[in-house]
Amino acid sequence: MRLLLINGPNLNLLGIREPGIYGNITYEDLIANLQNYSKNLGIELSCFQSNSEGQLIDRLHEAIGEVDGIILNPGALTHYSYSLRDAISAIQLPVLEVHISNIHSRESFRNVSLTAPVCIGQITGLGIHGYYLAIDFFVRNLMKENGSLK
Amino acid sequence: MRLLLINGPNLNLLGIREPGIYGNITYEDLIANLQNYSKNLGIELSCFQSNSEGQLIDRLHEAIGEVDGIILNPGALTHYSYSLRDAISAIQLPVLEVHISNIHSRESFRNVSLTAPVCIGQITGLGIHGYYLAIDFFVRNLMKENGSLK
Amino acid sequence: MRLLLINGPNLNLLGIREPGIYGNITYEDLIANLQNYSKNLGIELSCFQSNSEGQLIDRLHEAIGEVDGIILNPGALTHYSYSLRDAISAIQLPVLEVHISNIHSRESFRNVSLTAPVCIGQITGLGIHGYYLAIDFFVRNLMKENGSLK
Amino acid sequence: MRLLLINGPNLNLLGIREPGIYGNITYEDLIANLQNYSKNLGIELSCFQSNSEGQLIDRLHEAIGEVDGIILNPGALTHYSYSLRDAISAIQLPVLEVHISNIHSRESFRNVSLTAPVCIGQITGLGIHGYYLAIDFFVRNLMKENGSLK
Amino acid sequence: MRLLLINGPNLNLLGIREPGIYGNITYEDLIANLQNYSKNLGIELSCFQSNSEGQLIDRLHEAIGEVDGIILNPGALTHYSYSLRDAISAIQLPVLEVHISNIHSRESFRNVSLTAPVCIGQITGLGIHGYYLAIDFFVRNLMKENGSLK
Amino acid sequence: MRLLLINGPNLNLLGIREPGIYGNITYEDLIANLQNYSKNLGIELSCFQSNSEGQLIDRLHEAIGEVDGIILNPGALTHYSYSLRDAISAIQLPVLEVHISNIHSRESFRNVSLTAPVCIGQITGLGIHGYYLAIDFFVRNLMKENGSLK
Amino acid sequence: MRLLLINGPNLNLLGIREPGIYGNITYEDLIANLQNYSKNLGIELSCFQSNSEGQLIDRLHEAIGEVDGIILNPGALTHYSYSLRDAISAIQLPVLEVHISNIHSRESFRNVSLTAPVCIGQITGLGIHGYYLAIDFFVRNLMKENGSLK
Amino acid sequence: MRLLLINGPNLNLLGIREPGIYGNITYEDLIANLQNYSKNLGIELSCFQSNSEGQLIDRLHEAIGEVDGIILNPGALTHYSYSLRDAISAIQLPVLEVHISNIHSRESFRNVSLTAPVCIGQITGLGIHGYYLAIDFFVRNLMKENGSLK
Amino acid sequence: MRLLLINGPNLNLLGIREPGIYGNITYEDLIANLQNYSKNLGIELSCFQSNSEGQLIDRLHEAIGEVDGIILNPGALTHYSYSLRDAISAIQLPVLEVHISNIHSRESFRNVSLTAPVCIGQITGLGIHGYYLAIDFFVRNLMKENGSLK
Amino acid sequence: MRLLLINGPNLNLLGIREPGIYGNITYEDLIANLQNYSKNLGIELSCFQSNSEGQLIDRLHEAIGEVDGIILNPGALTHYSYSLRDAISAIQLPVLEVHISNIHSRESFRNVSLTAPVCIGQITGLGIHGYYLAIDFFVRNLMKENGSLK
Amino acid sequence: MRLLLINGPNLNLLGIREPGIYGNITYEDLIANLQNYSKNLGIELSCFQSNSEGQLIDRLHEAIGEVDGIILNPGALTHYSYSLRDAISAIQLPVLEVHISNIHSRESFRNVSLTAPVCIGQITGLGIHGYYLAIDFFVRNLMKENGSLK
Amino acid sequence: MRLLLINGPNLNLLGIREPGIYGNITYEDLIANLQNYSKNLGIELSCFQSNSEGQLIDRLHEAIGEVDGIILNPGALTHYSYSLRDAISAIQLPVLEVHISNIHSRESFRNVSLTAPVCIGQITGLGIHGYYLAIDFFVRNLMKENGSLK
Repeated sequence: MRLLLINGPNLNLLGIREPGIYGNITYEDLIANLQNYSKNLGIELSCFQSNSEGQLIDRLHEAIGEVDGIILNPGALTHYSYSLRDAISAIQLPVLEVHISNIHSRESFRNVSLTAPVCIGQITGLGIHGYYLAIDFFVRNLMKENGSLK
Repeated sequence: MRLLLINGPNLNLLGIREPGIYGNITYEDLIANLQNYSKNLGIELSCFQSNSEGQLIDRLHEAIGEVDGIILNPGALTHYSYSLRDAISAIQLPVLEVHISNIHSRESFRNVSLTAPVCIGQITGLGIHGYYLAIDFFVRNLMKENGSLK
Repeated sequence: MRLLLINGPNLNLLGIREPGIYGNITYEDLIANLQNYSKNLGIELSCFQSNSEGQLIDRLHEAIGEVDGIILNPGALTHYSYSLRDAISAIQLPVLEVHISNIHSRESFRNVSLTAPVCIGQITGLGIHGYYLAIDFFVRNLMKENGSLK
Repeated sequence: MRLLLINGPNLNLLGIREPGIYGNITYEDLIANLQNYSKNLGIELSCFQSNSEGQLIDRLHEAIGEVDGIILNPGALTHYSYSLRDAISAIQLPVLEVHISNIHSRESFRNVSLTAPVCIGQITGLGIHGYYLAIDFFVRNLMKENGSLK
Repeated sequence: MRLLLINGPNLNLLGIREPGIYGNITYEDLIANLQNYSKNLGIELSCFQSNSEGQLIDRLHEAIGEVDGIILNPGALTHYSYSLRDAISAIQLPVLEVHISNIHSRESFRNVSLTAPVCIGQITGLGIHGYYLAIDFFVRNLMKENGSLK
Repeated sequence: MRLLLINGPNLNLLGIREPGIYGNITYEDLIANLQNYSKNLGIELSCFQSNSEGQLIDRLHEAIGEVDGIILNPGALTHYSYSLRDAISAIQLPVLEVHISNIHSRESFRNVSLTAPVCIGQITGLGIHGYYLAIDFFVRNLMKENGSLK
Repeated sequence: MRLLLINGPNLNLLGIREPGIYGNITYEDLIANLQNYSKNLGIELSCFQSNSEGQLIDRLHEAIGEVDGIILNPGALTHYSYSLRDAISAIQLPVLEVHISNIHSRESFRNVSLTAPVCIGQITGLGIHGYYLAIDFFVRNLMKENGSLK
Repeated sequence: MRLLLINGPNLNLLGIREPGIYGNITYEDLIANLQNYSKNLGIELSCFQSNSEGQLIDRLHEAIGEVDGIILNPGALTHYSYSLRDAISAIQLPVLEVHISNIHSRESFRNVSLTAPVCIGQITGLGIHGYYLAIDFFVRNLMKENGSLK
Repeated sequence: MRLLLINGPNLNLLGIREPGIYGNITYEDLIANLQNYSKNLGIELSCFQSNSEGQLIDRLHEAIGEVDGIILNPGALTHYSYSLRDAISAIQLPVLEVHISNIHSRESFRNVSLTAPVCIGQITGLGIHGYYLAIDFFVRNLMKENGSLK
Repeated sequence: MRLLLINGPNLNLLGIREPGIYGNITYEDLIANLQNYSKNLGIELSCFQSNSEGQLIDRLHEAIGEVDGIILNPGALTHYSYSLRDAISAIQLPVLEVHISNIHSRESFRNVSLTAPVCIGQITGLGIHGYYLAIDFFVRNLMKENGSLK
Repeated sequence: MRLLLINGPNLNLLGIREPGIYGNITYEDLIANLQNYSKNLGIELSCFQSNSEGQLIDRLHEAIGEVDGIILNPGALTHYSYSLRDAISAIQLPVLEVHISNIHSRESFRNVSLTAPVCIGQITGLGIHGYYLAIDFFVRNLMKENGSLK
Repeated sequence: MRLLLINGPNLNLLGIREPGIYGNITYEDLIANLQNYSKNLGIELSCFQSNSEGQLIDRLHEAIGEVDGIILNPGALTHYSYSLRDAISAIQLPVLEVHISNIHSRESFRNVSLTAPVCIGQITGLGIHGYYLAIDFFVRNLMKENGSLK
């Protein structure tokens, strides 16, 4: 199974930006750990980060025919990027939205996600564990389809 | 580790109620599977379901000093029960909110969760996998505290 | 034909509570009269009243496979109980909402019904006549299905 | 007893317009059936339909001193015609609002009725049965006044 | 000076409709009195009433080149008829809006006038005196233009 | 008959402030003209202007038992002074609200008057004519009470 | 191909009303030009204008089985006439909404069209060119169906 | 004088739940102290607490004919329970609403009380003193009726 | 203990203004009674009333270092005076807000208090008893600090 | 005449993305056809597509002095990009907004266009025909200026 | 150049009131420093502070013909005083609004300024530096007019 | 001291775009003048402009450890870019927001700044003087820290 992990604006600052909210691990270490974790599960995990909405949309488009599922943390674009939302709808792939912090207990503008309605689901507030659980979800789902999960 | 799983109104109809949205497995089978899954992980999982807000609050109160974490699917109470919200705040235990369906792609009243701001996080839209991932989260978190996860 | 009549919070005070709005007949007399009326029409009418949302949901669940239609006056739960709404959707039975007073000419919060969208229809403002007309509706509908109405 | 049935804009297309929502019977057949039904109950039923708000108001004015009650389906005027609302208030006659479809389960603009607050009540979602039940209501009410109903 | 008085929906019921709000004088008597009053002031007063928005617009159009000013009581159309508003803008004549009752102390929907922003002004709540004062205004304005008022 | 004319904040700048909106006559000249006009009608007209809400309230209180009616232009206090509104209610005298400009065709905050609901009526947009018409109204009303108006 | 052009309230004043917004050509000339234009394209173009919502609805109803498409400029009814909207839905014909002025750059109430959601599309702001383009659209569409457009 | 004290959801956790907001005294001690205090004033004080809206409504109903006044802390039900509101209206007894914390300085949803409009008054933010002052109020009120207070 | 009682706009009309809402006792008698009551409790009670927001703010500022607590009835300023709110915050003294009438059962604008969030609490609807209970609260609070209350 | 066609985010997926809404023709074929069509009309048509708001703004800036008009489909940026709106205002060129689908019959967020108020007009819902009609509009407009259109 | 500095409600408490937000310098010292600073720049700086809206308006009126520009910190009146706004418009002088704290990062009611739209600009959040920068602005502007700035 | 000046979308058109609002000086000249001005004050001023949100965020990230303060004119991104807001929060540097025009006196969408709450302050409406005052602010602040300002 091939998965794509996309992180949006400011997530490159992980470990640097407001560690009280986002934790201490750096973006680079997180990616390395997640790729290692995926490899052990037999998953090919591609990773991409950009602060540019346009590049994120481009990357989503390229994923057509390339991967089996997408883990997406759109950062603050979650709350206003109808273009990103349209890109998710357009590519017809299962996209799972992940947020490191609990977006429901912060500023009110973070309570509404424009992208979640076109994703299959959302994991929020579980720190970087959210990324691992997202990978696990795709594995579980595959096992169900293969009949190895009941 | 002891965990408590609480399901709110109408979740007893799982497998019966709108299977297109909630899936085919019955509530009883789900509980049996989750308890089996927990047992294998060395977790003691208590389960409770009620259609009554008052009984759900009572059960949350009883959890003080009894469990290490709570997995809560408040059903539609998510969207209006400030009393449930207060109970979650009051008991000072980590509560993880789970929804089977993607509450963001249904009626607009389901887009806002009154309980999520006082939970540690939320998993939505991943079907019954959400419950398993919630258990996994508590395990991962424990491992981190124990130093067995890095 | 078997019908179930469910009355929600405070309707047990009928005849006692604000007679200017709800009339003088007591709840007990109303039930007796409605059951007599149904009997004459060859209908088995079960009746239930509770001030507890949880018990009302439980009763709706029990109606699956038991009755052919439900007449429901949710009282003030009409205006905030998404759980009751979900229960109505879940049981897949025709539910007809009845209000004794004209909910459109009172406080503004009574103008919106959360349950009506998942009911087949609503009768409001016709006093206790509303209950009789609701029974008549189910009779008329049955006659149409049987071909005895044209 | 003399009753007046008034149907507003587009109801002349009954049986033609969106039969999935409004049913298959034509407006002409419906009127014939309702007048027959009324006759059998000893009621004189006048019927009027117009697509013009002005003509509907004129007809309501003419009803003063002519009929004992009015059954009104204002069509979409329900949702914006404050003039119709004022006409209902002005004529000081009991007006019962009827909608064929369940206005609560369609577009959100149909959820609010401007006319219902000045009517005695409202029947929605019961198809053309709603008109028959409305006639029955006036009969029941008369019987109560006459002492023949208890 | 030629003036046109236009009264909208339900104002033909003056003296009949809710006398507590609108007073006891009939529409016919009011018109006769106002025409008498105007005649004494050397004003030619045309009067028109209709319950139909379309006819009111037609009448406004006809006023182009015919009168020097218009006194308009749009009735409840005040609160939703953007077409009437457009007609007032289109004819480029001074229109003075009059309401018999105090629209600010009644239902909230009556607090906003869609037509007032394109009228020169508004008189509300002064009973039928409002019509007389409106005529006086046009006289005063004319005197100012003629230099006989200072 | 004794009348009191009260003008609120910034109306002392009449003739100076935005003449395009408020006209060229100064406050002092307006007052002189209005008092002359009243005298000729046998009315004793007291006048008061202040930029202070507190002084305006004090003046309203003093009017109890002193005058038969009040003409009030509250200036911008119209749109936020609930204290002024309470003072009007408290003194139990007929108060007629006047605005020189058409408050409905300016900024949206000027569209709502907090004081109008507790006044007997409102005249807006007729320039300083509004004050004269307000005096005329009290005269007309008195004539009606005296029977000299029909 | 037969087309029907319907113009709503105040459009009869074209060339007279606010030429800065609506242009200088009169309604009569516009109609003559459009019919000439249509004739050259082999299209039979019927035209209708009314200031009455009821007559517009009547005309839409008559179009059933008579024309292949409708070009509709509802005037200000666009912004409040749910009855017109229902008529468009009911007749099951392709209706193309046209506005002469750019409704998005004028008063905010003109930004929302109640009729556009049930039309196939909308052309705004292109002056009377909009009507010509609307005719062209129906021609293009027909050509596509006939296979003569690719 | 007989009084009834009703505490709603989560108030059983007093002294345990968020002591920074609600104080250190336990629910049991508070009740004992209040009953002692009442006894000294010659008042019979019944006390009831439940986390269930239905049981709170039942208890209010039972109070008819049993007590002279009610002190009610509805907990978070204050903010959404229209059923509780209806129960208060229905029983026709003086109910005084008490909140321990200042509901106006916390989350915005706590700023609006649905029950206060049908209570005689409300005391908020004075800690457990609020309960004592509520008892004192009923005593003062009784004294006034008896003529012993002036 | 020194306390300061401040009453805002229109409260000087107590006993005169709308006695159905505010009672029959005059402001002067109320003050005399409250000062007598305080004296008996060993409290020095200063009293101030003004219809001017500015003077009320000045008086609050002067209270710094002069009194131990403030009882404030801001009148209608409660609902719009952010300046008063800032003054309360600025002086760092315990302020207890009192309203004679039940502000929750009157016009909707009275439901929100801008000052309550920066006060320690609020008493509403208990008539002039509210002032006495406010004094009692400060006494009770002092006793607790002194250890004479348990 | 030189025209510029700009397509925003996700329009490169034309023919691939949701063909039920956007049709089957690919973006490349559409561009080729439109350029062919323009060439035949003697128009030089430049085309540009980007998923990046910044590049779209850059391209608009470059158009100053280069083209005579712009056809713009901003994709979902229509609904939130105030920067794009400012760019359209800044370049002082006629911009015609085109949407392939009917934005008024889809999700509510698509009902409002932030860019349309600063465009000359908008064509929506006519599929790819909209682009052809937009070219035709510029031709028609040019003919009018040249005097070859009447 | 003559400038006028006006400070509104509660700013006399500078240095005393919430120093964490407003700083430690007292109002008197600030004024002395600013006047010294102005003197060195050849500017005559008048200063005024009042807690009364009426006095602030009076002072603004007096500034006509007296000063060349005004620096205004309206305190909390910023958020509700339409009278102050009208006074600023009326006097036709350049007014620069200054706030010591960042009004955008505090309570939401502070985010909107009613006065800023009629001022030339606003400086917020820069502490007392804001006053110095405001003086500098008037100097820079004068230099530009004099040609000594480029 | 090192400062960074960042200008967002469309500010490169300065001097070209709507000079009535933004002035006549070109972007290039402004930058040259500001760098000259800074140099004279001993400040190293870096300047950056982009129409791309992503590049603006990248540039903000690069500023960590590079500069002592940032002057930011986000252009229209001010009103919707939560990503930019997050970038400002993340980099933990003092950012001062500047707008050339008075955003409070233009379209309503410009009244709210999403970025200002995480900046230290904001200067609006003072034309290009705003940039100079922003530099002066950082100088003044430094002087205060150094003790050379009092």
